[in-house]
Amino acid sequence: MRVYLAGPEVFLPDAAAILAAKADLARGHGFDPVTPLDNELPAAADRLALGMSIYRANVALMDGCNAIVANLTPFRGIGADPGTCFELGYMTARGARIAAYSNDPRGHFERLQTGFYGGAARPDRTGEHRGPDGLSLENFDMFDNLMLHGAAAGAGGILVVARDGAPLSPDRLARDTDSFAECLRRLRGSA
Amino acid sequence: MRVYLAGPEVFLPDAAAILAAKADLARGHGFDPVTPLDNELPAAADRLALGMSIYRANVALMDGCNAIVANLTPFRGIGADPGTCFELGYMTARGARIAAYSNDPRGHFERLQTGFYGGAARPDRTGEHRGPDGLSLENFDMFDNLMLHGAAAGAGGILVVARDGAPLSPDRLARDTDSFAECLRRLRGSA
Repeated sequence: MRVYLAGPEVFLPDAAAILAAKADLARGHGFDPVTPLDNELPAAADRLALGMSIYRANVALMDGCNAIVANLTPFRGIGADPGTCFELGYMTARGARIAAYSNDPRGHFERLQTGFYGGAARPDRTGEHRGPDGLSLENFDMFDNLMLHGAAAGAGGILVVARDGAPLSPDRLARDTDSFAECLRRLRGSA
Repeated sequence: MRVYLAGPEVFLPDAAAILAAKADLARGHGFDPVTPLDNELPAAADRLALGMSIYRANVALMDGCNAIVANLTPFRGIGADPGTCFELGYMTARGARIAAYSNDPRGHFERLQTGFYGGAARPDRTGEHRGPDGLSLENFDMFDNLMLHGAAAGAGGILVVARDGAPLSPDRLARDTDSFAECLRRLRGSA
């Protein structure tokens, strides 16, 4: 099984090392891993052309895979990296095997209510919680937006959310591989 | 052309009215619009079951469409709503016609550097900007993450970013339909 390793690790200063370690773990579980760094980019005329070239390369990498393991740990805010969300949607439509994980044990509602709104969201007259900005908070006992949770927890999907415990440091949140390895184990067990 | 109207409007207190207005605009341009509110949900045993049911309904709605117009205006943070990102990826893989817009004229790099990092990101020794947290900033003259920009600006795609001008109020950012209407015009012109 050829597996696309999606996630925001590409933004880390040690991206190459982290992704190499994840790929090694995947090979150790019998998979053929592909990461967003596994491409050779043609020379680009400008920044926009380079960005478009990386987009096309990532799509081509995904098209060569029949599974994805997506790191949906919150990144620079309250939820998953938007590029990884796009890739999860892309692979879902292609009928790929879906596995996703979060290193953050907190649920979506808790992160919004506690982190983003500082506890200020209140139920409206229909019982739905809204922030002072009027926006409603999804409250479905899910780890992130329902499209992400739904894709991973639906038929044939694998979802691993870190068990509640001592809060992980930012370093561990970004780099821990326990939940990633659990995705690999379950994916192999159901292959 | 049956068009899925994706975006974070579902979280607004006036979601039904806003989505009805967008659907009317789409019909006025000759499209058959579908919104995430256009579903009838079966009774659910608990919150999680309800969330999963909405996920499946949204996927079914997308499967009935051959185009998407995605509102990628930043939502609760520095970038697009993660559910909408998932849907854009899903429809891209299905080979649907892609149109996307942002009501925020600022680019991804500017929002990160000015908004998220308060100007504190600095070039590393390779010239790439990194925040004090070590994370790199995409700097591709794009309006958001390169997977989103790439899908909308690639072959056959339509991307409309609001023209630079006076900053929109939060209310206008969330509800303005100028860029949405421009997507519809271009989509009709190229149909």
